[in-house]
Amino acid sequence: MSGLHEECGVFGVFCPGGAKDVASTVYYGLYALQHRGQESCGIAVNDDGLFQHYKDVGLAGEVFSPSVLEKLGPGNMAVGHVRYGTTGGGGRLNAQPIVVNHRKGRMALAHNGNLVNSQQLRDRLEMEGSIFHTTSDTEVISYIITKERIRSSSIEEAIDRAMEVIEGAYSLIVMSPAKLIAVRDENGFRPLCYGQTAEGDYILASESCALDAVGAAFIRDLEPGEILVFSRDGIRSIRSHCGKRPKTTCIFEHIYFARPDSVVDGVSVHHARKTAGAILAQTSPAEADVVIGVPDSGIDAALGYAGAAGIPYGVGFIKNRYIARTFIAPGQKAREDKVKIKLNPIEETVRGKSVVMVDDSIVRGTTSARIVKLLRDAGAREIHVRISAPPFLNPCYYGTDIDSQDLLIACHHSLDEIRELIGADSLGYLPLDRLHELIGTPPGVGFCCACFSGKYPTAVPESGRKNRFEQKIGGKAKARAAEI
Amino acid sequence: MSGLHEECGVFGVFCPGGAKDVASTVYYGLYALQHRGQESCGIAVNDDGLFQHYKDVGLAGEVFSPSVLEKLGPGNMAVGHVRYGTTGGGGRLNAQPIVVNHRKGRMALAHNGNLVNSQQLRDRLEMEGSIFHTTSDTEVISYIITKERIRSSSIEEAIDRAMEVIEGAYSLIVMSPAKLIAVRDENGFRPLCYGQTAEGDYILASESCALDAVGAAFIRDLEPGEILVFSRDGIRSIRSHCGKRPKTTCIFEHIYFARPDSVVDGVSVHHARKTAGAILAQTSPAEADVVIGVPDSGIDAALGYAGAAGIPYGVGFIKNRYIARTFIAPGQKAREDKVKIKLNPIEETVRGKSVVMVDDSIVRGTTSARIVKLLRDAGAREIHVRISAPPFLNPCYYGTDIDSQDLLIACHHSLDEIRELIGADSLGYLPLDRLHELIGTPPGVGFCCACFSGKYPTAVPESGRKNRFEQKIGGKAKARAAEI
Amino acid sequence: MSGLHEECGVFGVFCPGGAKDVASTVYYGLYALQHRGQESCGIAVNDDGLFQHYKDVGLAGEVFSPSVLEKLGPGNMAVGHVRYGTTGGGGRLNAQPIVVNHRKGRMALAHNGNLVNSQQLRDRLEMEGSIFHTTSDTEVISYIITKERIRSSSIEEAIDRAMEVIEGAYSLIVMSPAKLIAVRDENGFRPLCYGQTAEGDYILASESCALDAVGAAFIRDLEPGEILVFSRDGIRSIRSHCGKRPKTTCIFEHIYFARPDSVVDGVSVHHARKTAGAILAQTSPAEADVVIGVPDSGIDAALGYAGAAGIPYGVGFIKNRYIARTFIAPGQKAREDKVKIKLNPIEETVRGKSVVMVDDSIVRGTTSARIVKLLRDAGAREIHVRISAPPFLNPCYYGTDIDSQDLLIACHHSLDEIRELIGADSLGYLPLDRLHELIGTPPGVGFCCACFSGKYPTAVPESGRKNRFEQKIGGKAKARAAEI
Amino acid sequence: MSGLHEECGVFGVFCPGGAKDVASTVYYGLYALQHRGQESCGIAVNDDGLFQHYKDVGLAGEVFSPSVLEKLGPGNMAVGHVRYGTTGGGGRLNAQPIVVNHRKGRMALAHNGNLVNSQQLRDRLEMEGSIFHTTSDTEVISYIITKERIRSSSIEEAIDRAMEVIEGAYSLIVMSPAKLIAVRDENGFRPLCYGQTAEGDYILASESCALDAVGAAFIRDLEPGEILVFSRDGIRSIRSHCGKRPKTTCIFEHIYFARPDSVVDGVSVHHARKTAGAILAQTSPAEADVVIGVPDSGIDAALGYAGAAGIPYGVGFIKNRYIARTFIAPGQKAREDKVKIKLNPIEETVRGKSVVMVDDSIVRGTTSARIVKLLRDAGAREIHVRISAPPFLNPCYYGTDIDSQDLLIACHHSLDEIRELIGADSLGYLPLDRLHELIGTPPGVGFCCACFSGKYPTAVPESGRKNRFEQKIGGKAKARAAEI
Repeated sequence: MSGLHEECGVFGVFCPGGAKDVASTVYYGLYALQHRGQESCGIAVNDDGLFQHYKDVGLAGEVFSPSVLEKLGPGNMAVGHVRYGTTGGGGRLNAQPIVVNHRKGRMALAHNGNLVNSQQLRDRLEMEGSIFHTTSDTEVISYIITKERIRSSSIEEAIDRAMEVIEGAYSLIVMSPAKLIAVRDENGFRPLCYGQTAEGDYILASESCALDAVGAAFIRDLEPGEILVFSRDGIRSIRSHCGKRPKTTCIFEHIYFARPDSVVDGVSVHHARKTAGAILAQTSPAEADVVIGVPDSGIDAALGYAGAAGIPYGVGFIKNRYIARTFIAPGQKAREDKVKIKLNPIEETVRGKSVVMVDDSIVRGTTSARIVKLLRDAGAREIHVRISAPPFLNPCYYGTDIDSQDLLIACHHSLDEIRELIGADSLGYLPLDRLHELIGTPPGVGFCCACFSGKYPTAVPESGRKNRFEQKIGGKAKARAAEI
Repeated sequence: MSGLHEECGVFGVFCPGGAKDVASTVYYGLYALQHRGQESCGIAVNDDGLFQHYKDVGLAGEVFSPSVLEKLGPGNMAVGHVRYGTTGGGGRLNAQPIVVNHRKGRMALAHNGNLVNSQQLRDRLEMEGSIFHTTSDTEVISYIITKERIRSSSIEEAIDRAMEVIEGAYSLIVMSPAKLIAVRDENGFRPLCYGQTAEGDYILASESCALDAVGAAFIRDLEPGEILVFSRDGIRSIRSHCGKRPKTTCIFEHIYFARPDSVVDGVSVHHARKTAGAILAQTSPAEADVVIGVPDSGIDAALGYAGAAGIPYGVGFIKNRYIARTFIAPGQKAREDKVKIKLNPIEETVRGKSVVMVDDSIVRGTTSARIVKLLRDAGAREIHVRISAPPFLNPCYYGTDIDSQDLLIACHHSLDEIRELIGADSLGYLPLDRLHELIGTPPGVGFCCACFSGKYPTAVPESGRKNRFEQKIGGKAKARAAEI
Repeated sequence: MSGLHEECGVFGVFCPGGAKDVASTVYYGLYALQHRGQESCGIAVNDDGLFQHYKDVGLAGEVFSPSVLEKLGPGNMAVGHVRYGTTGGGGRLNAQPIVVNHRKGRMALAHNGNLVNSQQLRDRLEMEGSIFHTTSDTEVISYIITKERIRSSSIEEAIDRAMEVIEGAYSLIVMSPAKLIAVRDENGFRPLCYGQTAEGDYILASESCALDAVGAAFIRDLEPGEILVFSRDGIRSIRSHCGKRPKTTCIFEHIYFARPDSVVDGVSVHHARKTAGAILAQTSPAEADVVIGVPDSGIDAALGYAGAAGIPYGVGFIKNRYIARTFIAPGQKAREDKVKIKLNPIEETVRGKSVVMVDDSIVRGTTSARIVKLLRDAGAREIHVRISAPPFLNPCYYGTDIDSQDLLIACHHSLDEIRELIGADSLGYLPLDRLHELIGTPPGVGFCCACFSGKYPTAVPESGRKNRFEQKIGGKAKARAAEI
Repeated sequence: MSGLHEECGVFGVFCPGGAKDVASTVYYGLYALQHRGQESCGIAVNDDGLFQHYKDVGLAGEVFSPSVLEKLGPGNMAVGHVRYGTTGGGGRLNAQPIVVNHRKGRMALAHNGNLVNSQQLRDRLEMEGSIFHTTSDTEVISYIITKERIRSSSIEEAIDRAMEVIEGAYSLIVMSPAKLIAVRDENGFRPLCYGQTAEGDYILASESCALDAVGAAFIRDLEPGEILVFSRDGIRSIRSHCGKRPKTTCIFEHIYFARPDSVVDGVSVHHARKTAGAILAQTSPAEADVVIGVPDSGIDAALGYAGAAGIPYGVGFIKNRYIARTFIAPGQKAREDKVKIKLNPIEETVRGKSVVMVDDSIVRGTTSARIVKLLRDAGAREIHVRISAPPFLNPCYYGTDIDSQDLLIACHHSLDEIRELIGADSLGYLPLDRLHELIGTPPGVGFCCACFSGKYPTAVPESGRKNRFEQKIGGKAKARAAEI
């Protein structure tokens, strides 16, 4: 319900034993990663150097009919992508994987993350006469790798050199005619792991839940800065970029983006969320009869809160499972209350009670206010809102859409004002100084929490946040990049 | 995950104040009732005697685009339907509401339930030269009402007479040029309730959660046998069929079909399920570290079990929210394990633990066996399966697809054999003699549990169960009624 | 370009040798009959008593994908239908064949024509408690046959009796579990013929061009009143209704509806049209440099005129082949001149010349005026319009949409006024008293020309034309029967 | 029926008076140019520097729904494209206009033609690190212009320089933020003209029939080598490349590609075809009763033959207007004779007669053989085939798909062998030395007829025809560039 979005999920498969139905394997993987991006998706299949690809707007189940999967044909490797994109723009044009032709053959790229120096790189490339078909970072990356490829003896060498140039967040899967290559940026902002199936095929995925979906056993996460090359000669790890920077994995992966059944960098997402709830029970206790979570992502933290506080956990809401991403509310009145269509409180659970309601975030505050009102209307006596994250105060430059301070309620209002605005009896956020407990590291170590703290682990885009914001509200400027 | 299906959900709206956008209101109602039927849906709008209707296979969100809703136009009343149908057959042809023309004008019917004497009625009608376009009971009902209408002074009188003839389970909404009429059979097999919005519009729905979805306040459930007429002259209740038979509402509505946030015949569905879990904790206790539910319908009973047993409740599985009803698993291997695509265990919750796993039913046993195996592979030490219903032993003739003893595992295996087959360490069903506690009635009173007990509250179809089964396996016979 | 429409085309196949891919055969037949109806189409396949059918709005090529044809399966007989319907209403609901279940099994009906007593029959049936799902005559016919079937020993006997009751224009194909039956009304208003393929399969079709399309050799036209039964026992002709009335085939089939490559009742349509042109050259001669036809239906008559007058024939217009029936002209200006998008004059042919332009009809006059203006703008010096039919003065009750005098320009204007309104230098219609020459019969014998002459060969609907017109303009009344 | 295909049609609009609904104007233009390409189409709209574009596989009427046109929004200029592409590959990816971002802003390109040095240019660009998303020449052109743009003071200067580099056939429309620019290659291979509407908007189009469709008055054809710039400052013609090479417009535009109602380089296409027929009447006379044309493109030449020979012209075939480009023939038997579904002879015209049948070309001979057989089966006594073009003997490198000598029947067979193979009684081609008469130039001047003569007006691709052929049959090599 939070309105926040991760930009992408990537998935790859490499079959040492030769061509098989890799498209279906990727298809299952994309299903499992669908929560990371619902706007568009794509699959590129490589059959011994011959590429077939297909991508379009829509969910994996909408884009990939059995006949499309069949046309993609068998292959010895493949790469897939799910993408979240801004409403109305981009669409099919920015769908990934990007498949390009260059001097040394074809290349497919799937990318999760966001560069901080893409504008500078793009300016430089355009000065050299490069043309761009899309507005995405990924096309910039494909150019940089291509340029390096001309003077490199191998694709992995080109990637290694490109990593000297590109800065920011990127978990990449690159497919060349003969190799499948996974890359994780030096900070390790976005997750990336790999595993192996019983048949011996290697699987790459943004999250371990996608390994589970295709029956692959988890092997390990990629290290920040690592380049992992799968080819006929086996697996090779290139670690020349490892250890250059402190690891700063996005903590919001654990709080919200990742699926609870995934294990990211060795930590169970479900466990991290329960821990957040348990911390909240200590730092923001409440006299209450029941603890409920806002589905789906508030459920785990609610259980953690309930357990730590010794208050019964209850099912507070039923979420309508048939409301798709593309749901358009017809009629005037309904348009005003989409929340009601999606969530319905269980009166039995809350009537006459003091309720702790756990959610993962408050962005603008409007959704939270509506959810609180639903509970109030269902007869809750007191409503204590607990947020399993600190307040958002800063834009994110690493691949999420937390980006304008003007829209973030916590930038303009005190805790008590927010409580008042959302109509809660009390309000508590997860303290910033306890975030590290979610993943069991020392304070401030091993994760990025710049959206909460403002401390960015890399240089930020030159034009800074002001420019970003102008792009957002500058309708015409935005339209420049739009394809219907 | 159970593979059982309710046949339908009905929804109606009557606006005393004149025409408005009733199509959108029904659309929201169908969204809220979508769990009762996902094969096809339809809406008929009545604008002062002029009918417009549209129906097709698909979910409400797929069938009703904004432009289709707009074409349905404004009206002072409307009726909608969601339908579950057998795979491959029926489809668009059997979608409801049925809209027919007869001597006295147009009539739309939406029906939830199943007649027990439809074959006899159909035989009789055919002997008189009637033709049938569909294979559904609803067309039979529309004929019976039409025939009675010829000699009746009003549509409600015709319905009253028709109720002397039709037998079995039916919650109906009938729309005539000037009236909206709700009907519940004498046994009250299927739920039906009504409420009113702040604007004064009356809403009819199979479940109260659909009243919530359109912002209507619940007024009351219809009584078994009641005919409720909405017209310009206000509301009129015809009770000539009330009290003729003992009330026998389907208990499986509470166990599985209805949404937990609905209140059916005065009982919270969520509460009934928690009660089932609590009873199981008494009748089938287990030494365990955690209690988990199989999503979505096992969650409430698991909470009840956990609370009653004093064992912590945990989130055991993540259900993939993007697997649609129409999901087709491509590839050979995957086809063998659809369960894995839909459910993924959270290892954190179950590894090394003794787990109580609560589900709502075991039909053939194959799905249960796979779910147990998922837990075992995720490291569960012991798995104690608890079912929040008694074993299925008999076919249902009242509108569900529990119908062949040959497919029901409990008809052919002992408790211990079933436990063995599904791979559990222990297995416990809800005792038949405690079912009444779910809805707080005296033992054996107020509900139908024929699928468990074999005690049918009405006569059953002449040809009995054998014939039904033959129809199922008789491919050609079945095809007779098929439209693609 | 005339804006007139035939209501339907029918096609059937019977395979004495057993089941085969009859759906594809019908599909080809419907392609060849597509000019007779472009709104909806359908196919019903009978595999030894088991029926499968599919129908929808759209052209044959849109409705029948290879996968849909495959699902229809093999069969030993099949029936198909193309239908023209009024804009906005009817649609999928009124698509044919109608497939119904009655006492003696299933029955599929495909119908071309229009009854004159359908309202009386419908009233009677409704009084007996019959319900109607559609507003089409065909459902009435199916009821009448069904009622007669109860007391008849065979389907053909029932049809024979039904023919005593139904009046008007009907070319029918009826499919029972074991028989395929073709029926032509006593007047023979609409064409119907049959032939046989090299494999021995019998083909029924509205026009002989559909026999050609499936490689069948033409055998003969059905006689007015004939019932032709195809079964395992061979072919049987029932002629009890033959000779009861004078044959009055619709002359407009030859003038406009039928394809020029068809032979209807022994007369080449192409030849009949050339004859019309030749007569016009005598009755309305012109001093001209070139004779052109308005594509497509004016071409043949133009050739006839040119030949008889000794004036060169030229290609006057190019018709855009990509403007589909569903073409929606966006933009205001374009909406005003759809004709221009469809037709473009060849300046080379007409500049500076005196031109004879032959078309098949003038309905409201607006389209003709625009076409004349196109020629004028392309530099034609003089434009002599010749119409290969007499003026429309009366509604048609036999299955075309020539129906309101209020819309027919010839009802309200003199020849010279019409000439003036369409901007022609001269205007000539085919004389009524020479119509018989098109088909080589004695004057006034063998054809219906009621739309020109007002002499109806049957009783006309009781309510007469006034009522029909009211239905047309009575928006609400019309909507009564509408499905989106 | 010939199986030959033009590769593209281009259309542009420039409104000096400011933004309006240019998308609809382009839409109508594409309808009129649809015969030049039916695989994919696209429109790019420029609203004062802001670009919106949409393209997809399908006809204009399929791709551009009213809602898509509306989303493209108003603009002061726009460009559109229709494309023919090889079956199965390319598809959406190679659809045009190409819209790219470069240093100086956005640029849209629509291209008709084929470069002869695209492979060398592409090799060079790839060596510099350029990446290619498509396999089309157009992307190469966009790179060359972009590279020149860096060092040029204007887009037209960049285009002028690019023309020094690119060689071959190209009629281009380039849209920059502030200008719409039309370009025709130095040989003038492909047509390109412009006109103006009554409102003062300028229209660019491949053929004049598209000017007619949007109500624009023809102004003139572009000269070979001309660059025509439309901007706020008016129209500017850059002629630095004019007169560098002899004009060699593709003669097959007149014979087959262009629409008869177009005037190309001052010559009426209809007139050119009639002339071809008249020449054939002299060079290949026949004793015959009737002259018929194979629709649609053989009609005009047939009229010319008939007129010159003094033999009556007749309508020999009806072409089914509902067979779309995407028609898939189901069923085995039918697949063997697609010609029969598309064409049906009019027996009335040919039975018992000696027939001259005029067609525009013979490619492989199989289609011609089937058409001759249709006539024979319809009773034609003698069939004299006349082809309104010389025999194909050489591949075309300028934008058509006449490309492998291995497939061209005339490369391997004598005239008499071909006559025998197609089953004709006599066969005559248009003599090469009279081709110039079609367009009224001196012998060998003003047109390219390399596909007949082998005399190429430019250098041909280095790898020559052999390589092209290998690419064709080299399935894997071809697949390299394929997107589904």
